[in-house]
Amino acid sequence: MSARARRSQAQMLADIHAAALAELTEVGIGRMSMAGIAQRSGTARTSLHRRWSSPTEILLEAVEDNYPQETVSPGLDDLRGDLIRALGFLADWVTTPTALAVEAILMERGRHPELAQALYERVFDRNGGRFTRTVLLHYAEHGHLDPALVTDVVTDIGEALVLKHLADNGSPPDSSLLARIVDEAVLPAVGRPLVVDREP
Amino acid sequence: MSARARRSQAQMLADIHAAALAELTEVGIGRMSMAGIAQRSGTARTSLHRRWSSPTEILLEAVEDNYPQETVSPGLDDLRGDLIRALGFLADWVTTPTALAVEAILMERGRHPELAQALYERVFDRNGGRFTRTVLLHYAEHGHLDPALVTDVVTDIGEALVLKHLADNGSPPDSSLLARIVDEAVLPAVGRPLVVDREP
Repeated sequence: MSARARRSQAQMLADIHAAALAELTEVGIGRMSMAGIAQRSGTARTSLHRRWSSPTEILLEAVEDNYPQETVSPGLDDLRGDLIRALGFLADWVTTPTALAVEAILMERGRHPELAQALYERVFDRNGGRFTRTVLLHYAEHGHLDPALVTDVVTDIGEALVLKHLADNGSPPDSSLLARIVDEAVLPAVGRPLVVDREP
Repeated sequence: MSARARRSQAQMLADIHAAALAELTEVGIGRMSMAGIAQRSGTARTSLHRRWSSPTEILLEAVEDNYPQETVSPGLDDLRGDLIRALGFLADWVTTPTALAVEAILMERGRHPELAQALYERVFDRNGGRFTRTVLLHYAEHGHLDPALVTDVVTDIGEALVLKHLADNGSPPDSSLLARIVDEAVLPAVGRPLVVDREP
């Protein structure tokens, strides 16, 4: 296959994913169709059916492909920075079309519980379950934190505060607020001394 | 006015409030009408117009009347219990019709920003802004906590974790999880020693 053909296939896949996200937010889960995604992406319906069994399969793959993966700095010497970066991935992501699709799936979980469940299993759990959890577990595994303090409640603090700010203000926290969330809420919960007047 | 007449008026007001909440969740903010609320509550439309200028005025009053007020125990000797009770008010409230109405107002804030703003000013801010904030400020004012630690981030930790649990699970935290939220997330942020294996 030529480089040109590969690019073109990658672009087609991106278009199909974007079409699935748009289809969801515009017509809702219950009325998503292969025909709709085919039309929005300029793809033949038969091509879609060869690769995917249903519109929601395309949708889940689109979310998987556009979900950020939390990382840890190699030196194990920047817990604070790693936590701020982890929450930064979330803050950057929440305004993307993928995040709107995730919100729509969670809002319709009453009618489509299997889709919400697949979202948790295939996307959230596979990517660490919560932003900051991968970082906290990593530092705990290497003896820098007491592992007993890295509970499900504690690993949810940062994500909960970022999403709460979004719900209250309509926009995610900026970088200075992300740093305050880490300094004032996440680090104290894992036994770090609290620094109120931290130098910039 | 006789006791019987007063009861009857209180009941009518409760019915009108309930009708406004139901009207919102069924037809949406944009299509709420005095006629709809009158019909749902079995009240004459003219009676509504005498007291309220618009359907959203009734709606805001209904939310105000059904929003819990956080309290502090008189002895100033049970910070943990007061925090758990504060989050318990929120956990009990989030499944009520009023909470569904609040969710609907916040979701339509893009189209009706003035209503969302009125909600924050007349309901949330007037009731302490955040659950646990009244308690934390009270203990800080009486010298039991460093006031510098009671920031907007810290006073949002408990509420953010309760609402996050609701979003992830479709139900609010139970009482043992509320206690863990206080022990593992809220108390560490205000400088209290963390108790991991607390006796019941």
